[in-house]
Amino acid sequence: MVQTASSAHDTVESPDLEAIDIATVLHALSDPMRLEIVRQLGGCNETDELTCGQLELPVAKSTASHHLKTLTAAGVIAEREEGTRKHLRPRRAELERRFPGLIDSVLRATNSG
Amino acid sequence: MVQTASSAHDTVESPDLEAIDIATVLHALSDPMRLEIVRQLGGCNETDELTCGQLELPVAKSTASHHLKTLTAAGVIAEREEGTRKHLRPRRAELERRFPGLIDSVLRATNSG
Repeated sequence: MVQTASSAHDTVESPDLEAIDIATVLHALSDPMRLEIVRQLGGCNETDELTCGQLELPVAKSTASHHLKTLTAAGVIAEREEGTRKHLRPRRAELERRFPGLIDSVLRATNSG
Repeated sequence: MVQTASSAHDTVESPDLEAIDIATVLHALSDPMRLEIVRQLGGCNETDELTCGQLELPVAKSTASHHLKTLTAAGVIAEREEGTRKHLRPRRAELERRFPGLIDSVLRATNSG
């Protein structure tokens, strides 16, 4: 797949699985709005994606964008740009391999809390 | 047991189980030094305790004290004062009831990372 220079520039890099740090992941998950993003993406499979516009968040677009960058940089979600649209997917299966049980227990806590 | 006014004053209150918030717990766990404290206390049962002096931490006493307060206020550990000594215990079984699987997955990640 050919990736244009502009899309590579605009997209936050999500780290390789082995480079994902537990403290960084926990920090990314420690904000109510970021937990809500992960909860909404939680229904997606690894191969399903949501666009930013499909997320229902009660915050300004710039604030949502900041939270998405934090989650992406920590390795919790991955972003893919297609034209002007950002497609988001959870890295659930990968995180499950790296930190077994973590993301499921957080999603359970978020859904029940 | 009679508790003196001074010991009640010096001890940080740990919240009731129902009041423990997932984002606050994740934030308390999102620091490498606090993860290390939880790891060292992880070997304790609910009824076992460590004193502050038994923790092996490469930071100043005041820094360790700050981290312990953050963990206690979030409900991750409980402190009990006896004379001039603080006794610490993990609230592992209680957290397991409130957020099933969370603390175990974090301890596993911390031990393997």
